[in-house]
Amino acid sequence: MSLAVVNATREGATVGLRCLDGVVAALGPEVVAEPGDETLDAGGAVLVPALVNGHTHAAMTLFRGYGGDLPLMRWLTEKVWPVEERLEPEDVYWGTRLACVEMIRTGTARFWDMYWHPDATSRAVRDAGLRATVGHPLFGLDEDLSEIEAIALASLEAQRQFEPWIGRALAPHSIYTAGESLLRWTAETAAELSLPVHLHLSETEQEVEDCVAAHGVRPAAYLDRIGLLGEKTLLAHGVWLDREELELIAARGSTVVSNPVANMKLAVGGVFPYPAAREAGVAVGLGTDGAGSNDSLDLFADLKVFALAQRHAAADATAIGAGEAWGVATGASAPLLGAGRLAVGGPADFLLLRRDSPELGVGELATDLVYAASGSVVETTVVAGRVLMREGRVEGAEEVVARAAERAHGLGIG
Amino acid sequence: MSLAVVNATREGATVGLRCLDGVVAALGPEVVAEPGDETLDAGGAVLVPALVNGHTHAAMTLFRGYGGDLPLMRWLTEKVWPVEERLEPEDVYWGTRLACVEMIRTGTARFWDMYWHPDATSRAVRDAGLRATVGHPLFGLDEDLSEIEAIALASLEAQRQFEPWIGRALAPHSIYTAGESLLRWTAETAAELSLPVHLHLSETEQEVEDCVAAHGVRPAAYLDRIGLLGEKTLLAHGVWLDREELELIAARGSTVVSNPVANMKLAVGGVFPYPAAREAGVAVGLGTDGAGSNDSLDLFADLKVFALAQRHAAADATAIGAGEAWGVATGASAPLLGAGRLAVGGPADFLLLRRDSPELGVGELATDLVYAASGSVVETTVVAGRVLMREGRVEGAEEVVARAAERAHGLGIG
Repeated sequence: MSLAVVNATREGATVGLRCLDGVVAALGPEVVAEPGDETLDAGGAVLVPALVNGHTHAAMTLFRGYGGDLPLMRWLTEKVWPVEERLEPEDVYWGTRLACVEMIRTGTARFWDMYWHPDATSRAVRDAGLRATVGHPLFGLDEDLSEIEAIALASLEAQRQFEPWIGRALAPHSIYTAGESLLRWTAETAAELSLPVHLHLSETEQEVEDCVAAHGVRPAAYLDRIGLLGEKTLLAHGVWLDREELELIAARGSTVVSNPVANMKLAVGGVFPYPAAREAGVAVGLGTDGAGSNDSLDLFADLKVFALAQRHAAADATAIGAGEAWGVATGASAPLLGAGRLAVGGPADFLLLRRDSPELGVGELATDLVYAASGSVVETTVVAGRVLMREGRVEGAEEVVARAAERAHGLGIG
Repeated sequence: MSLAVVNATREGATVGLRCLDGVVAALGPEVVAEPGDETLDAGGAVLVPALVNGHTHAAMTLFRGYGGDLPLMRWLTEKVWPVEERLEPEDVYWGTRLACVEMIRTGTARFWDMYWHPDATSRAVRDAGLRATVGHPLFGLDEDLSEIEAIALASLEAQRQFEPWIGRALAPHSIYTAGESLLRWTAETAAELSLPVHLHLSETEQEVEDCVAAHGVRPAAYLDRIGLLGEKTLLAHGVWLDREELELIAARGSTVVSNPVANMKLAVGGVFPYPAAREAGVAVGLGTDGAGSNDSLDLFADLKVFALAQRHAAADATAIGAGEAWGVATGASAPLLGAGRLAVGGPADFLLLRRDSPELGVGELATDLVYAASGSVVETTVVAGRVLMREGRVEGAEEVVARAAERAHGLGIG
């Protein structure tokens, strides 16, 4: 399968790009279509890498707008948890398909997911043509791990059929919902199977206080003691990480994914300390969190809020540069996320941006992408060399929207 | 000129809406097209009122992405001001046309503007079919007002030809750039001509400190002493207003327009105290500020940041309800802004939202509009009964984007 994109604009020059088997085979001014290529004329549209959503619960599109004005614990106990008990794989499948439509429309090629029925998530991602690293959330404070171990291993086994298209991960929910035994088992199993670990860390100040009270150290040090802070560890949130923790995380090569919109919406009261993380050398990515606490999956919106929140928190308009913020959203600064730059030999995941967007008409591209654009500037989305959106249309989107709404109604939402 | 919209969805019911001479003539389940009506079949799309942008400098779309990473004073002195000295009416015209394309696309029907060459702004707004209240920014710290009076009066005269389509305003820039004499003259002239007054107030903490040092009172009390705090006064920003000032503003019936994105981008360090303003009974609207400090004019993005910033600042997820936030963006709670609810006898300014938007597929409408939607959910924009965008297309948009880019290049930007 080969695709040639011609007549695209990159850094002011007209370029072509050829994809072979999901990989960028050629990129540059001299690149033209070859016999047998599917050809896409970009008509001068701007070529940029696709975005990476480093932390979400995709199927939670079903919960969008459901109890959104409630405080966190009432939202969880009165709204989300009772419905989650009734969730079936088909609910997760259509909720994730809905999420994929939105991500394709708004330029996200790849995401890190943690949710129930991960095999249904993986099937939806495969059918939609996106890429994801998927894990079953693991909860358990007991010493006896037999039940949760069985669930985790069965889930990993069920997911195997989707490799290598879908990555598998171990996803202990957090240090306050997964006990020390479960976390140690996770560390050993992840090392044995060479799998990444994806967990929430330091989302609320309460979590930090409880960790210090229970374990005598702050969350990152606690994870390190257990052997869970490695190069394949993704820490979602990190709002309350202090300088010492950031230095430890950098030394271990772990990645922190900031979720600024969800943090503000759930009113955790803090902002991820990006300038300190940058200074320490931490790999940083950007995530939406679930649609239930955002409620959009348009990562362009989160990118803007990420940069705004950093400037606001520092009371300094130079706290983060636009090019640097763009790099966070594309995964350029966090190799674990799996994206990398748009270059020969890299994944053929890229976007073409509408030339007639008023938002991109004038100005510096990175600044426009961070502050002026929303996902609606994306005209074409290509993932692994396959065109998933063409001229703003995702094939079958209407059916997905309708089926997801049916599932939500069936669950008593909306 | 009559327009009938049929088959629209409102509060779960199918409704029709007829517009006559820019006003809503009929609205309800029984309303159908009459002979001679231009008819628009909404195909089940959701009908909502259009949004009001309460504070912007529309032509600053020309400055989008220009020096966006610089701190405020360097951005102004090195980038904006040198270019503004060379601005010609045609620059303002095409910059404003570009702004209008973006506002039409993202559902804004009406805006309050303060910028150079306001007659060019008004011409652009009229040609685009939007509504605006436009003022020439007045600067002057001298006792001798002869020059600035002449400029202000000439500008009001030049604007007269655009009434009643365009509203005229007196727009002293701020209390630190307009001296007490100019502010008193503004108050007298506004009263005499029955014009609204539009100014920046309490954007930075420095402004408050300087006001107290110079006048012995905080900014709102200073304005009140001068007679500038009336029912037709629009105060942009209000980040540092204290409880006493908010009570004074409520008592005088003035309106405060919050610009959360610009405040965060310029890193002023504070958040407009909305809960205190609500408690005091202040009329509140929402604005983007100029595209140079935002950089989008998609008010849906600002609406989300407005609600997020309030929840974050209060560390309370219930700080503002979604329905209430939506009311701020549509001007429902600030009559001065000129919008009002969608009802018979009111202005025929409304939107139809895409039925196939993944963001609106499930959930409560107000929550989806505030947190999940961006301006891209808008399919049709009607202002004063005229269809300005149909199925996502604004007629002539490509030419406007190209002409504005030419003007920006001519000014040495981009």
